[in-house]
Amino acid sequence: SDVVSVEDQGSPWANEPKRHALLKPAAERPFNAEPPLGMLAEKFYTPNELFYIRNHLPVPTLQDDDYGLEIEISAGKHAGTAERTLSFEDIKRLPKHTVTAAIMCGGNRRSEMTRVKPVKGLSWGAGAVGNAKWSGARLSDLLVAMGVQPDERLHVIFEGADLDPTAHPYAASIPLSKALDPRGDVILAYEMNDEPLTRDHGFPIRAIVPGVVGARNVKWLTRIVVSDQESDSHWQQNDYKGFSPSTDWDTVDFSLAAAIQAMPVTSAICTPMPDERVRVSGDGHITVRGYAWSGGGRRIVRVDLTADAGATWHVAELEQEDLPDGRHYGWSLWTARIPVKEQQKELEIWAKAVDSAYNVQPESFENIWNLRGVLSNAYHRVKVKLIREAK
Amino acid sequence: SDVVSVEDQGSPWANEPKRHALLKPAAERPFNAEPPLGMLAEKFYTPNELFYIRNHLPVPTLQDDDYGLEIEISAGKHAGTAERTLSFEDIKRLPKHTVTAAIMCGGNRRSEMTRVKPVKGLSWGAGAVGNAKWSGARLSDLLVAMGVQPDERLHVIFEGADLDPTAHPYAASIPLSKALDPRGDVILAYEMNDEPLTRDHGFPIRAIVPGVVGARNVKWLTRIVVSDQESDSHWQQNDYKGFSPSTDWDTVDFSLAAAIQAMPVTSAICTPMPDERVRVSGDGHITVRGYAWSGGGRRIVRVDLTADAGATWHVAELEQEDLPDGRHYGWSLWTARIPVKEQQKELEIWAKAVDSAYNVQPESFENIWNLRGVLSNAYHRVKVKLIREAK
Ligand SMILES: [Mo]
Ligand SMILES: [Mo]
Repeated sequence: SDVVSVEDQGSPWANEPKRHALLKPAAERPFNAEPPLGMLAEKFYTPNELFYIRNHLPVPTLQDDDYGLEIEISAGKHAGTAERTLSFEDIKRLPKHTVTAAIMCGGNRRSEMTRVKPVKGLSWGAGAVGNAKWSGARLSDLLVAMGVQPDERLHVIFEGADLDPTAHPYAASIPLSKALDPRGDVILAYEMNDEPLTRDHGFPIRAIVPGVVGARNVKWLTRIVVSDQESDSHWQQNDYKGFSPSTDWDTVDFSLAAAIQAMPVTSAICTPMPDERVRVSGDGHITVRGYAWSGGGRRIVRVDLTADAGATWHVAELEQEDLPDGRHYGWSLWTARIPVKEQQKELEIWAKAVDSAYNVQPESFENIWNLRGVLSNAYHRVKVKLIREAK
Repeated sequence: SDVVSVEDQGSPWANEPKRHALLKPAAERPFNAEPPLGMLAEKFYTPNELFYIRNHLPVPTLQDDDYGLEIEISAGKHAGTAERTLSFEDIKRLPKHTVTAAIMCGGNRRSEMTRVKPVKGLSWGAGAVGNAKWSGARLSDLLVAMGVQPDERLHVIFEGADLDPTAHPYAASIPLSKALDPRGDVILAYEMNDEPLTRDHGFPIRAIVPGVVGARNVKWLTRIVVSDQESDSHWQQNDYKGFSPSTDWDTVDFSLAAAIQAMPVTSAICTPMPDERVRVSGDGHITVRGYAWSGGGRRIVRVDLTADAGATWHVAELEQEDLPDGRHYGWSLWTARIPVKEQQKELEIWAKAVDSAYNVQPESFENIWNLRGVLSNAYHRVKVKLIREAK
């Protein structure tokens, strides 16, 4: 049941859903929260109630029985000729397609980048990512049925039902080529891990754009436009872009940078947690576990761990779907056993992942620092203390 | 005209073509050579005679009038049913498709990685890359006409006419999904920058696999097989793969690593050259120029330069084709003007590129070192001396 405090009655925040007690808020309004990192690598499919929540605006109140999704073709060969409104039942009657995809916030791990120099944005840990099985209708089926032809100059704009104070919706866009690619697996999802979407995750329909930054996976989807322009929303134009480390708020020109779509390769150590006291096994090893992921459908091919600042690297065991490069959208969980020296009392563990294009993570945050703190994918480093059984 | 020394008569090396005097050999037999780095960024399309040459075996002697390309479908829905032999004229009669693509050797910039710790392989500088306009028939047109259906478990094997001492051809494979992708632009090329291919570049037909490591762009192409296995060649199975820095020749298991296909993001400074004396402009700047490229069709979105070890970064101007992400196979040339301090006599310039998935280069070679010295894409660093006009 939802919780409304007295002072919120009548405010846009009066209808926020109740959230799981273990989600740690990075912000309350709009609600943004991540699960404890130590729990994140326990399950290949992140439990829905622990999946990070990244809302940009108040959660809208939609009903499935009066839901409508407008689709408008405003550019390309059939511009202006095609327009449809689909009900929730219309979407559910289309062929059901299921895809495993990790969704990652563009600001995941921002709190590590901030330590180099402050950035503007929510202070996310490494938990602003989750992996789920999403089911729904393929966007490509719908667009092809409406006569949309491939055209690399075009974009697909997604609008949500969540409104800013001037009644403009949250919106974002992706290239039409991604939407039409049969291996792109873009879907209008109504299920997350075999359950109906919850309100926080976009009930009744959310765009799932596998391999692409969370911000383009628009929730509470109510309008789709095929356009010759990217979305003109704040989030497409003036946010979720990368810049050089020397670009500051006085010199930044958002029009010069590319909107983030596919995300770069990253990884994180989930256990042990920073400053944790870690038990060393009888044969002198510790066990380390985490996740790795790369955008654009690139599979993770290797995760390397070091506990001696790179003098020796240990290759982790991977747990991942058996899907080919270019269409591998789920994350990979990994486990490594790392030998430690007999007298050692503490150490720092580093993780780095390699994707199927052999892209690697940068060593540190200094040279990827950017004023919005996005794309924070340097090596993940965790200091721990070692404890041993008395002999 | 070809040059044959007396002692080569009758040997497999008797028919090597003549090469441009400016190509610097990394090896003579097989012939492997790169142009002077200082010339590489002069032209967006690398002149054919200066394009790096990477031969694995002696150059075969083929004639276009008795050339034949066998195509065999040995797996998938139509396995065994389809087989064709195409003459050179058959291929030229197919619709002609042109694509700009940089081709890069998997070992480009190996000489920099070797400085960390020796690796096995030819000591390439940063010139084992070139950018050209390639024209030929689309492989996807041919395969579709032969009834090949998309199947992500399948591969396309390319065999060349170049033979090893046991009469096995050079061979390599790519995923069928790349070969069938209309945006993948795989072609059977007979022209390079509007000229017929030269013998060193694969006359009469070479596979061009845009965005993919040079080794899969098989020259002197004589056989194509759609197969349920990757090529069993040495170069596909036991070479051109990446490993952890702690994997050595005693522990390496080539079967555990992914064959390199799409290459990671990289860049290099072409001018000034190392130890060059660089004139500082009247307003206190030096000009730096180079190339940047990423595999998989990813566009370069930014190149950053620093001359003070990362304290300040300068964003370069890019010269590139106006093609969308996912289908941007050419390289980008870039130019930056970097301010220098009045008293400064020498400095080190670093370049790093960012691709459209916001993948970045690693800072240094230590943690990407691998025993074959491939994928050598750390920041490019060049030390120069500064000279000034007398006032
Ligand atoms: Mo996000
Ligand atoms: Mo190569």
